Amino acid sequence: MLASRHPQLNKHGELIHLLTLEGLPRDVIHHILDTASTFLSVHEREVKKVPLLRGKSVFNLFFENSTRTRTTFEIAAKRLSADVINLDIARSSTAKGETLLDTIANLSAMHADMFVVRHGESGAPFLIAQHCAPHVHVVNAGDGRHAHPTQGLLDMYTIRHYKKDFSGLTVAIIGDIVHSRVARSDIHALSILGVPEIRGVGPKTLVPGDLAPMGVHVYHDLADGIRDADVIIMLRLQNERMTGAMLPSAGEYFKTFGLTPEKLQLAKPDCIVMHPGPINRGVEIDSAVADGTHSVILPQVTFGIAVRMAVMSIIAGNEA
Amino acid sequence: MLASRHPQLNKHGELIHLLTLEGLPRDVIHHILDTASTFLSVHEREVKKVPLLRGKSVFNLFFENSTRTRTTFEIAAKRLSADVINLDIARSSTAKGETLLDTIANLSAMHADMFVVRHGESGAPFLIAQHCAPHVHVVNAGDGRHAHPTQGLLDMYTIRHYKKDFSGLTVAIIGDIVHSRVARSDIHALSILGVPEIRGVGPKTLVPGDLAPMGVHVYHDLADGIRDADVIIMLRLQNERMTGAMLPSAGEYFKTFGLTPEKLQLAKPDCIVMHPGPINRGVEIDSAVADGTHSVILPQVTFGIAVRMAVMSIIAGNEA
Amino acid sequence: MLASRHPQLNKHGELIHLLTLEGLPRDVIHHILDTASTFLSVHEREVKKVPLLRGKSVFNLFFENSTRTRTTFEIAAKRLSADVINLDIARSSTAKGETLLDTIANLSAMHADMFVVRHGESGAPFLIAQHCAPHVHVVNAGDGRHAHPTQGLLDMYTIRHYKKDFSGLTVAIIGDIVHSRVARSDIHALSILGVPEIRGVGPKTLVPGDLAPMGVHVYHDLADGIRDADVIIMLRLQNERMTGAMLPSAGEYFKTFGLTPEKLQLAKPDCIVMHPGPINRGVEIDSAVADGTHSVILPQVTFGIAVRMAVMSIIAGNEA
Repeated sequence: MLASRHPQLNKHGELIHLLTLEGLPRDVIHHILDTASTFLSVHEREVKKVPLLRGKSVFNLFFENSTRTRTTFEIAAKRLSADVINLDIARSSTAKGETLLDTIANLSAMHADMFVVRHGESGAPFLIAQHCAPHVHVVNAGDGRHAHPTQGLLDMYTIRHYKKDFSGLTVAIIGDIVHSRVARSDIHALSILGVPEIRGVGPKTLVPGDLAPMGVHVYHDLADGIRDADVIIMLRLQNERMTGAMLPSAGEYFKTFGLTPEKLQLAKPDCIVMHPGPINRGVEIDSAVADGTHSVILPQVTFGIAVRMAVMSIIAGNEA
Repeated sequence: MLASRHPQLNKHGELIHLLTLEGLPRDVIHHILDTASTFLSVHEREVKKVPLLRGKSVFNLFFENSTRTRTTFEIAAKRLSADVINLDIARSSTAKGETLLDTIANLSAMHADMFVVRHGESGAPFLIAQHCAPHVHVVNAGDGRHAHPTQGLLDMYTIRHYKKDFSGLTVAIIGDIVHSRVARSDIHALSILGVPEIRGVGPKTLVPGDLAPMGVHVYHDLADGIRDADVIIMLRLQNERMTGAMLPSAGEYFKTFGLTPEKLQLAKPDCIVMHPGPINRGVEIDSAVADGTHSVILPQVTFGIAVRMAVMSIIAGNEA
Repeated sequence: MLASRHPQLNKHGELIHLLTLEGLPRDVIHHILDTASTFLSVHEREVKKVPLLRGKSVFNLFFENSTRTRTTFEIAAKRLSADVINLDIARSSTAKGETLLDTIANLSAMHADMFVVRHGESGAPFLIAQHCAPHVHVVNAGDGRHAHPTQGLLDMYTIRHYKKDFSGLTVAIIGDIVHSRVARSDIHALSILGVPEIRGVGPKTLVPGDLAPMGVHVYHDLADGIRDADVIIMLRLQNERMTGAMLPSAGEYFKTFGLTPEKLQLAKPDCIVMHPGPINRGVEIDSAVADGTHSVILPQVTFGIAVRMAVMSIIAGNEA
């Protein structure tokens, strides 16, 4: 039963898909991060390629458009020497009324080895993993408001890189938590890795009060929320939310929850500031912080390629 | 004269372009199918690549959008180790008023080795083959209502795979024959390969009565048409036709010409059901049939990659 | 100061970006053309690839759509064995309000090796080169009305190929000079390479009278302008200009400035006719000229691939 709900591990407990970080054993996460670490040095080489996925076909299935995320997976797959096929799903057979599972069955019949799936509906990558052929591996590249596990993993990589140990950390996640699959994946991972203090910080409309079951302490005041934090994870404020009734103006939001150098002084002196990008300068984050010495936003991007290479090579090496 | 109208064979009778199945010698077709058979095993390997087109540039020129067909050619070319260039023709120079032949001359001058052409106008791939540089090979990936020769070949591969011999078969093609380039290519191939009984089945608006010159027996009643058939080829019902005056509703169509398990019982017990995809469940085919034991729809997709690899490698190896 | 305004040369005078031909030393240009010459033979080989950029990631950043130019760079990069990533910028993060420099910083953090940039704003590739990480190389693929240096270089390659020596040539550039980045790049290069007579030919609205500072003699009469020319460079007449107030009809333009076989007789008997493409037959050029014996329009395309391979391999080999 558990296996059918979380079909990402085979009977030996090895990762065959990456669908969510929820319920993933701690040692599986560390194994991914350790593997990513070996790939980081690949970037420094003259020839930035390893042959681990040579002759494999990786399909980017982006039902929801995201050039940036697709690009990171495309680079990761090509550095593993895979053949990458980008499917422009919006213009393809699904538009002709084909069902999702028929599309997947067809692509599997082309001897696809891996699907990287971004979908607006929560759970779509699960559905695909449950129904695809046994030789196919699925990576969730973001589904609805549910999960964005590779972003969660690269965030964990970043924290481990700068802080070494998770066991004494205070991590503040700031912004639109209720709509954020990044926040959800981060919270699961932080809790699995043993972070003792996870905080959710933002206005009541974006940070509901009932996050205790997830082990998150809620703060509606930025100063309180970031006090003595070791790690600050800013979330992107979606423009479409701001124009809705949920929030006042971008300027108002910045005044209350935007991260400025002054507010940052409340955190630990060696704290790091993270952001999944793309950043809204002057909305959720001040340029002086985004470009400042605490910011690790660009290293996150670099780590993200290595983490995706790690995920893809690990799941491709395990059998269903 | 013949050579200029069907410029797909060189003076030694070797295939240099694939434009249509009409008039293709039987042994050329069997040679393609035999070659495809050797490529099928490539899919099973760890490294699914052969170096036959290494360093060759294959251009996908899709003047008419078709993500699925383009993808099959892209995979086939990459598994042959070619460099693949996808041209977004709708947004390119043709939109700036450049003529088709100027576009082709330009791409040839970039030392293209192969053009895979999908075009809304019947005959466009012929025009290209007649005017392109001698080092360039052309594959017709579907032109107007005229031909879809690689689909025809993969259908023949499928039939040969399951039925071994063409000489005693009854094949029923069901649906919108009048608008279908798939049907046209299938009919040519079946007749070249010696199938004694080819049937066209559908309403009068979609299956004209005068198909006798093509060697096709027309049936306007589904039960009569599939009786004792060895092979059933369903055609996709284009939604745009249904909303026109030609047909009643999708529900009506299904009642009369949709393939259900009950109707399928009229065919031979070991008959196979084929469909070029994407399928319209509940319109031309019942899910119980599409997913049933007679269905070979997904094997068709697998064979399609191997057949396209065969066509590309064969024509690239022959000189004009 | 000069270095910061023209950051394309390192302190050893080696090319690390290609942003403009203005101010480029003559020997650097000849080095590029010599290198391109060695790549021309690559096209003739069975395997049209060299491993010079193996494992490098080349990003095509086309902020302004140009399928043809993007394709030439994609082919050039793939023949150098690079991994090519095409970014659909119009649909990506910039659309989400990210700044140009944040986009560039992000892509650099993915360990990009080269950006090929087409942008509607003059100077955008300079801005990128000034701010990107030291390991990244930038090629200007056309910026606003400013420069199109690889087109300029392929034009110089073409002239050198057919005329051997620049020192005695008369070169007439005909058409919409005021809006043309191609004309600007050509004029800089011709003047650096020592062409004694550079002419700008066209109506007053498109060829201003004050081109003397650039060393260009202005002609508003086609017959005068092409008399005794060794080289004629036709420019494309943009349709959007014709519909504006600047010009009469396409037919009117052709009567006055269209290149016909009759007018071509005024030029030297061995003159060559060039055009950056795509051509407007019957607008700026008569088909009899475009397809005639003086036309070198298609060789330009072939040379263009080799020149882009040369530029990419040279800058990738030099350190900032």
